[in-house]
Amino acid sequence: MPKSSDAPSERTRIKRLAKRAHYDRETAYAVLDAGILCHVAYVIDAQPFVTPTCHWRDGDYVYWHGSAASGMLRAQQAGISICLTVSHLDGLILARSGFNHSVNYRSIMVLGMAEVVDDAGHIDRALEAFMERIAPGRWQDLRPITAKERKATTVLRLKIDEFSVKVRDAGVADNEEDYDHPVWAGVIPVTTTLGVPQADPRLAADIAMPDYLAKIAV
Amino acid sequence: MPKSSDAPSERTRIKRLAKRAHYDRETAYAVLDAGILCHVAYVIDAQPFVTPTCHWRDGDYVYWHGSAASGMLRAQQAGISICLTVSHLDGLILARSGFNHSVNYRSIMVLGMAEVVDDAGHIDRALEAFMERIAPGRWQDLRPITAKERKATTVLRLKIDEFSVKVRDAGVADNEEDYDHPVWAGVIPVTTTLGVPQADPRLAADIAMPDYLAKIAV
Repeated sequence: MPKSSDAPSERTRIKRLAKRAHYDRETAYAVLDAGILCHVAYVIDAQPFVTPTCHWRDGDYVYWHGSAASGMLRAQQAGISICLTVSHLDGLILARSGFNHSVNYRSIMVLGMAEVVDDAGHIDRALEAFMERIAPGRWQDLRPITAKERKATTVLRLKIDEFSVKVRDAGVADNEEDYDHPVWAGVIPVTTTLGVPQADPRLAADIAMPDYLAKIAV
Repeated sequence: MPKSSDAPSERTRIKRLAKRAHYDRETAYAVLDAGILCHVAYVIDAQPFVTPTCHWRDGDYVYWHGSAASGMLRAQQAGISICLTVSHLDGLILARSGFNHSVNYRSIMVLGMAEVVDDAGHIDRALEAFMERIAPGRWQDLRPITAKERKATTVLRLKIDEFSVKVRDAGVADNEEDYDHPVWAGVIPVTTTLGVPQADPRLAADIAMPDYLAKIAV
């Protein structure tokens, strides 16, 4: 595969429905940042695999991590271009014909070569950034990472160079002649929410719920 | 790639963490059926792509569909094995060390060759089954599908033969020596829900919300 910088433009390599394609970086980062779980596609012996994993963004890179012993992560850093996709389902569109049923969604696909983060300081900063994305301020309160744990962790990152964003955020779009058809039509919103934090049964009684949890619980 | 029936067992081809792996079909179907959106990975010129799409299951097959003009769908039916993954993020596990942070989730990965559903009756039954999964009883109320619409729609299916299921559904699992570390630990539940249906502004005033919507709105 060509390197990202040598690749044809994303508009030729990533063919997606033009009317729903958005290529600006601001939209791309908003879609990435709104998600906790991404799907990474990679190839082993011509067989594509796609596995879910948590991701986070720092500047123009999207990061993820896993066990250093993971065959998946090894395959993702094998010098073969991968694809990382984040998708949000936002609504079900119930139209008057089956054909015009649709969904509201936001998705981004990023293509390129994953890089291994192999500097200890960079690994720690990356893991701290991951924690900041979930629970701001928590990292400093944790039992610190050990050298053994760092060695057992692989952190990968992908430069956000070649990407495609697609968004549908609209109501029902029926054929004009179908609006008289007597069936209910509309949108069913779909939302993903964080619930009330449940303390570990072994949590000491004098440890209160930190502010960052009060903020992320909706 | 070998055909599904000639392939080595899923346990050798799909290497996933053994303690979280579940291979029974009942668990697999429950994870598939709980999702509306899957991620399909496919390869074009050695580059893997992964795109979200809606899926549904009928018996031992998982189905999805799209525009017959879609390059993605053409690539998915090119006789190259694909991977279809459904993932649910169920909770964030906040442990006392960064290393023991985790997530609760359910995921299934299905490998194999996609088949094109090219019989008109089968296409109609498949699309009806998709509607049944979302809004039971709605199909018969819709403006019927036309021959032109059927021609513009590609329905694909994948036999659920080679698959891997992973589930984490547990609380915090810290190292024994870390339980005294004074930081909050616990689980933040993550849930995806369908909201109150919003009627199309052009809906005729005398069309009430059907029962199947009252049932799916939680």
